[in-house]
Amino acid sequence: MTGPSELPGAGSHRGLRVRRLGIDTHQEAVVYMRQDCPVCRAEGFLTHPRVRVRSRTASAIATINQVVSGLLRPLEVGLSESAWQRLGVAEGDEVFFSHPAPLDSLSLLRAKIYGSRFGDRALATIIGDIGAGRYSDIHLASFITACAARGLDDREMLELTRAMVASGDRLDWGAGPVVDKHCVGGLPGNRTTPIVVSIVAACGLTMPKTSSRAITSPAGTADTMETMAPVDLDLPDMRRVVEQEGGCVVWGGAVRLSPIDDTLIRVERALDIDSEGQLVASVLSKKAAAGSTHLVLDLPVGPTAKVRSDVDAARLEAALTLVGTSLGMRVRCIRTDGRQPVGRGIGPALEARDVLAVLQDRADAPADLRDRALALAGALLELGGAAAAGAGAAAAGAVLADGRAWRKFQAICEAQGGMRMPPVAAYRHPVTAAKGGRVTGIDNRAIAKAAKLAGAPSAKAAGLDLHVRLNQTVAAGEPLFTLHAESQGELDYALDYVSTHPLAVRVEEA
Amino acid sequence: MTGPSELPGAGSHRGLRVRRLGIDTHQEAVVYMRQDCPVCRAEGFLTHPRVRVRSRTASAIATINQVVSGLLRPLEVGLSESAWQRLGVAEGDEVFFSHPAPLDSLSLLRAKIYGSRFGDRALATIIGDIGAGRYSDIHLASFITACAARGLDDREMLELTRAMVASGDRLDWGAGPVVDKHCVGGLPGNRTTPIVVSIVAACGLTMPKTSSRAITSPAGTADTMETMAPVDLDLPDMRRVVEQEGGCVVWGGAVRLSPIDDTLIRVERALDIDSEGQLVASVLSKKAAAGSTHLVLDLPVGPTAKVRSDVDAARLEAALTLVGTSLGMRVRCIRTDGRQPVGRGIGPALEARDVLAVLQDRADAPADLRDRALALAGALLELGGAAAAGAGAAAAGAVLADGRAWRKFQAICEAQGGMRMPPVAAYRHPVTAAKGGRVTGIDNRAIAKAAKLAGAPSAKAAGLDLHVRLNQTVAAGEPLFTLHAESQGELDYALDYVSTHPLAVRVEEA
Repeated sequence: MTGPSELPGAGSHRGLRVRRLGIDTHQEAVVYMRQDCPVCRAEGFLTHPRVRVRSRTASAIATINQVVSGLLRPLEVGLSESAWQRLGVAEGDEVFFSHPAPLDSLSLLRAKIYGSRFGDRALATIIGDIGAGRYSDIHLASFITACAARGLDDREMLELTRAMVASGDRLDWGAGPVVDKHCVGGLPGNRTTPIVVSIVAACGLTMPKTSSRAITSPAGTADTMETMAPVDLDLPDMRRVVEQEGGCVVWGGAVRLSPIDDTLIRVERALDIDSEGQLVASVLSKKAAAGSTHLVLDLPVGPTAKVRSDVDAARLEAALTLVGTSLGMRVRCIRTDGRQPVGRGIGPALEARDVLAVLQDRADAPADLRDRALALAGALLELGGAAAAGAGAAAAGAVLADGRAWRKFQAICEAQGGMRMPPVAAYRHPVTAAKGGRVTGIDNRAIAKAAKLAGAPSAKAAGLDLHVRLNQTVAAGEPLFTLHAESQGELDYALDYVSTHPLAVRVEEA
Repeated sequence: MTGPSELPGAGSHRGLRVRRLGIDTHQEAVVYMRQDCPVCRAEGFLTHPRVRVRSRTASAIATINQVVSGLLRPLEVGLSESAWQRLGVAEGDEVFFSHPAPLDSLSLLRAKIYGSRFGDRALATIIGDIGAGRYSDIHLASFITACAARGLDDREMLELTRAMVASGDRLDWGAGPVVDKHCVGGLPGNRTTPIVVSIVAACGLTMPKTSSRAITSPAGTADTMETMAPVDLDLPDMRRVVEQEGGCVVWGGAVRLSPIDDTLIRVERALDIDSEGQLVASVLSKKAAAGSTHLVLDLPVGPTAKVRSDVDAARLEAALTLVGTSLGMRVRCIRTDGRQPVGRGIGPALEARDVLAVLQDRADAPADLRDRALALAGALLELGGAAAAGAGAAAAGAVLADGRAWRKFQAICEAQGGMRMPPVAAYRHPVTAAKGGRVTGIDNRAIAKAAKLAGAPSAKAAGLDLHVRLNQTVAAGEPLFTLHAESQGELDYALDYVSTHPLAVRVEEA
């Protein structure tokens, strides 16, 4: 590996002209090079060649894809979208190539693979390299797998979390408690956030909530909130809303909070790996970067939730509390029932409908969603000093009952750009019980999958409406849930899935 | 995940028209889809979407890259070279998309990551999925990392090897011993194969040698042999040569021997991971698939060789012997000196020159190359029953001394398509000792890197000629090695590297 010299044949002072091919290769930067290009020849092509690309203003490490067709002209190099953005170039700009510096942090990763723990600064170095785009997907997958196979001890988790916080922006809300909540995923319909924010902000606490869009679920909090108000706020707008109303529910994509987390999650999802260390670092790095000081964590436990058993929950709680406390946050974990979806609607608009019913304190509001939101809001009120120990849930209930939470929610929506009503799907189809009996199981994952196939979250009105709860008795032919879609094709597609997966809701004869 | 239905919006009977973009994405199949394409919308794009593509004659799993430019017309889908080849399509053919079946073998991989051993058939299932192109680079990297982190026991290594053999073709040479040799890499210039084949074939044994081209080294045996004779033979031609001469030295690329090995090696190189289990499976699967019955393995041991210590060598020998024997092969391992390169030349033509000098039994032939070749040939003669125990090396020496090996080599070259002389480089530059003293270290990796930067192996005449050996005394200004290149640019490039890495050859004052 050499230092600064350019690759042979490309000439010391001669580069290639960039062309934006408009190909989105996910986060990995890719350069497309003609087969006859000297850089291809020098790097060889049998392994996984990576090259350093330098523009007038920036540089990046990219993977080479060789072009064997006439797609590119001589002395032209194609750039993927991520390479284009990293290099900050314009069409036809000249870029230069050199050997990338050796990726020294790979030796730290290898040591972990072979059984050492990550030493001081090792994780900071690796996360720094990931942040600089030096890791290809192959390297990322190896890092994720090594962390899962070898595990991370408390100190490693703390270091990883710190490094991930340092990789992005960090919000500062001044003095006073900044409260936050997070649910350790896997439970469809568990959309407590807009309710919790409204209650605690109505009680005078500060809760600047940044939420994600769905990655593999039928709705993220940002998707649901977006059916009721704009969520695409930049940081100054977000500050204005929080200063005015004490809280907000916006999409976190406009601020770079622990951006490495998104990179790692993408690869974890592809592998379907959830490791405790990565989970702790993912949750807490986002919260620490968001400037939260008091944090309530909702851990649903159930056979088809992310946390499967009380033993797993206890271990995770201990790690979350230790790392969170070390980062200066006050953390409280609440273990909740994760055996079935929460509320009735699954999908952005259907969940928003449930949220509105609870906020309006309507008699037909789903009791489980209401109770969970009150428990979490109560815990936050206690943790943030706005209610005495043990009195939080009652205080939260009072704020909901007297309309203050509902008024606060409307005010937040107006401040975010104007309140609106969630859309309703034009295509619906009920799915009925084949036989009578008792509901003995609801598969969170199958329910989520059906909602996604019906179009959620990109079709906002799509999803499903669950009509039954665990242990309820149903008659043959009674509807178990109704699929909602914005097109007949998507409705058919979801129905096709449901007909081949009848155990999404299991009914057993007594 | 559903079964046979097509994705929504693409319509049940309507596909997309393929366009060959001519992009070589290594082995991973990629489809390029417009952002507005319904498949993109249905699959989402935040994780690592994989889709099943079906042509009239074949189907493949591919990764989706989204196209946000005008590169593709509506209802057109771009295919990478690997996708194009797997699908067997012609320009404009229609292809259809569906959700890929869930990759069940990922759960077997996850179990390994979390500490179980691979159960019965687990490795066969995983290797089957890799062979069918169902693993993306992310999955492959996770598999490689899991095997390295958790290790493979003897039974797992045997299963992996068997599965890799089953993934490709298997050659059958009829009755009688089929001898073979392999060097567990990492030592530049260790080009004994053409000499060994000539000796043992001259003694009447059958040695149908398939060799690889360089992946990350300055020369593979196939690259070196190609400077003296054609190596690009198909199986019928290879059989003809072996039937006629008893041996051959051809490139293995024309036959699919353990093709999964190449896939795994590509990812291992990117991670720079060498695990014992993968190494054993890699070496032995190729040999078993080639129909070898008697195998001699050369294990160079040295601080910059692949095997670093005698402890590592002993463990590797035990594993190779056990797995090889279980596959029905007779295996003998020979531990050799791996502290410095072998012979003088590094690079295809320069190594060929040394090989010819040994075969012609010339006085100036490198003694170390000659001695190593005789030791390996002698072991094969003993193992294959052509020499008594302990008498192999002497028998091999006699065949070399009386010209029979040289005549056999010429006959093999003629049978492979005609003998030729290796080319000589037009550009050369000596690198001299800065001070006098004793040569106390030669870095195999740095020497290999310099030879590659000079153009090897694609520039056949390029590489370097090493003039000194360990412990030799040199005077200041005396040449340590000479760089050979086919262009001034490549020569300069290698010189630039050498000037920043003076410790490739370490000289210390007495």
